[in-house]
Amino acid sequence: MSASVKTWRIGVAGLGTVGGGLIRFLAEQPDYAPAGDRAVVTGVSARNKSRKRDFDISGMAWFDDPVALAASPDIDVFVELVGGSDGPAKAAVEAALRAGKPVVTANKALIAEHGRELAELAEAKGVPLLFEAAVMGGTPAVKMVREALVGEHLDSIAGILNGTCNYILTEMEGAGRAFADVLAEAQRLGYAEADPTMDIGGFDAAHKITILAALAFGTAPNYAEAEIEGIEQVELADIRLAKDLGYRIKLIASAEQIDGGVSVRVHPALAPLDHPLAQANGALNALFIEGRRVGRIFVQGPGAGSGPTAAAVAADIADVMTGAQRPVFQAKASTLTIAPPVEGRQRQIRAYVRLLVQDVPGVIAAISETLAEENVSIDSFLQKPSHDAGAVPIVLTTHATPEPVLLRAIERIGALPHMLAAPRMIRIARV
Amino acid sequence: MSASVKTWRIGVAGLGTVGGGLIRFLAEQPDYAPAGDRAVVTGVSARNKSRKRDFDISGMAWFDDPVALAASPDIDVFVELVGGSDGPAKAAVEAALRAGKPVVTANKALIAEHGRELAELAEAKGVPLLFEAAVMGGTPAVKMVREALVGEHLDSIAGILNGTCNYILTEMEGAGRAFADVLAEAQRLGYAEADPTMDIGGFDAAHKITILAALAFGTAPNYAEAEIEGIEQVELADIRLAKDLGYRIKLIASAEQIDGGVSVRVHPALAPLDHPLAQANGALNALFIEGRRVGRIFVQGPGAGSGPTAAAVAADIADVMTGAQRPVFQAKASTLTIAPPVEGRQRQIRAYVRLLVQDVPGVIAAISETLAEENVSIDSFLQKPSHDAGAVPIVLTTHATPEPVLLRAIERIGALPHMLAAPRMIRIARV
Repeated sequence: MSASVKTWRIGVAGLGTVGGGLIRFLAEQPDYAPAGDRAVVTGVSARNKSRKRDFDISGMAWFDDPVALAASPDIDVFVELVGGSDGPAKAAVEAALRAGKPVVTANKALIAEHGRELAELAEAKGVPLLFEAAVMGGTPAVKMVREALVGEHLDSIAGILNGTCNYILTEMEGAGRAFADVLAEAQRLGYAEADPTMDIGGFDAAHKITILAALAFGTAPNYAEAEIEGIEQVELADIRLAKDLGYRIKLIASAEQIDGGVSVRVHPALAPLDHPLAQANGALNALFIEGRRVGRIFVQGPGAGSGPTAAAVAADIADVMTGAQRPVFQAKASTLTIAPPVEGRQRQIRAYVRLLVQDVPGVIAAISETLAEENVSIDSFLQKPSHDAGAVPIVLTTHATPEPVLLRAIERIGALPHMLAAPRMIRIARV
Repeated sequence: MSASVKTWRIGVAGLGTVGGGLIRFLAEQPDYAPAGDRAVVTGVSARNKSRKRDFDISGMAWFDDPVALAASPDIDVFVELVGGSDGPAKAAVEAALRAGKPVVTANKALIAEHGRELAELAEAKGVPLLFEAAVMGGTPAVKMVREALVGEHLDSIAGILNGTCNYILTEMEGAGRAFADVLAEAQRLGYAEADPTMDIGGFDAAHKITILAALAFGTAPNYAEAEIEGIEQVELADIRLAKDLGYRIKLIASAEQIDGGVSVRVHPALAPLDHPLAQANGALNALFIEGRRVGRIFVQGPGAGSGPTAAAVAADIADVMTGAQRPVFQAKASTLTIAPPVEGRQRQIRAYVRLLVQDVPGVIAAISETLAEENVSIDSFLQKPSHDAGAVPIVLTTHATPEPVLLRAIERIGALPHMLAAPRMIRIARV
């Protein structure tokens, strides 16, 4: 190496899957110098110093406290891989920014919930705060929206952003197994956390779509207003009936601008079988981005894992070394505002509705009349042969209807006589 | 606007589809300031000043000569949208770089054929040379490979990079029409140039994959060694037979690293019908990128057009304004070398072979024996009913075979008795 090459000293807090991947990544490339300068990990922090690891940290300074690492004068860039929206992760990122150090993080919860304040701090100090690894692992969704589509008017983004849910739904369909079974197996195999709430409850996907929505629409991240429904209620019966109708059920995270308002949602949704989102199976992530000029862009890749996520962190470290100066989001953080919410009646949705009714004359007529009275138009209607004497499963899909109207119609149907179970409604993806 | 906001004066040479799109893009956003600073087009150059245009250039200084615009002290960034690998485009880019001005270009031929020298000039002057719009229009393939996957070891990239060819192949299949027919119509509709050679001959796709290969593998662009075959020889019969076998014919541009060598190729290829590349129809572009850590990333979007390409140019202008300093390719241009070529025998390929033989005993045995002698193993064999008395069409696909062996076997088959036409070979995509 020439003596004129600068070396950036990297501090890494969190030595789990991604932290280990990053240290291996940089160890395999001792001359990692994508912008001309070199990056070398000189300090690390994690919960347990003596834990056995399959990568070498012997040449690195050890810090018990990530905040002390973040503020250390011996590091130039702080990489936060601790996780969690608050607690040590937030304290350490704040400490690094206050000390005027660039920060790279994979922490979606932190950016979705505190992104605006942290961006203000970073911009006040004139240092970058980068988070490519927070969304879709090694697939550069953040860079696409933040940099490549800067200035473009984006209308909507929608996709599959949680690999654990996608794996579970794929397994349920493929193996014909119930949600709880597949979840238990995913936990045994390490694909799902011991406490899987963040993933299966849709919260992880909601953090990610919140970040992308802020970048896409030039607003402040607004996780508090995200509407979130997980996959816990998806039954094998729904997966099978949806398939009979030509759809596959996916956990779709979406954000759209409607009349200046922004809607951010995560919920199970039916995607047509021949649609790319329906075909992104297993642990894949996939995303559509739709803009006024660029049309529809689709990107797909592994959304998590040590290698892909570490590559994203390394790319952000490279970006830090370029010295690029740009706002953390699409405008100076101090000017970012939260978009007004979108009213339900501004949304036209289509839905799949599953009913279980008693096999008595007049039931179907009553359902049809209720829908007609509410002006909900039926797209398809499927009455399955009854397995259980007297209990008839009915599945229907609707044409686009204002959302509150559709919800009211379903509520009215649920209150009709001869209903044997609460109606199950799943939206049909607008993709 | 605050008085402290800097304004970058943009000079645009070339006022065709992309240039017009860019001027409209910036006119619609007079406060376009994605990195804090503003960008304003202050000078333009094109062939004909008085030509009627659907955008306003009245406030901009006019230059008859793009080289004079490029060197003008009144512009800060030069945008080259003239096109062509040499001539005025190259002269103007060189003039701008020599004058120490950042350059943004959509010119794939220029970068593929002279990228290394131009990058050296840019790096000597310490200014960026950016070309996102050269590949896949508004879909950020260049940024993905150059920035987001920096440091990652990429093994291969493959995709559909020419929208005109993809449109023609899609139309041939959809409408059941011959190549020449569809080309003539595409020219009438403005989807194909009056001289379509660059597109249908595969040269445009070869320029693009040459650029991506250089970025992916850290080598100098090496267009001279690209192996290029266009779609002129694709017959409707091949499209139909491929479909019978479960494939769709696409013009695939691919680059891969094999044993330290780099292979860059463009040729028609069969992709399985359920594969994303087979499903990217019409004018879409689509690309797979495969890396050691990140796995397979897929990206798809409109590959051309005024809006998407202008958005890519605008994003590059934003990048210029961030002040980022990084090499034009993956390392300093002066250190880039051309990768050694890949020998044919290092490549294992699968092929589709169409034969037309006389309906006499022993012909099929002779074909099978020739393949067996060359150790080429048959994957499928299809003998279609003869429409023409005595002339039998035969289609076969092979298992993976070293390329020179396969070519020799086909040559030998072509020389067998009772062949009524030269064998037609199309590779099966390795996707």
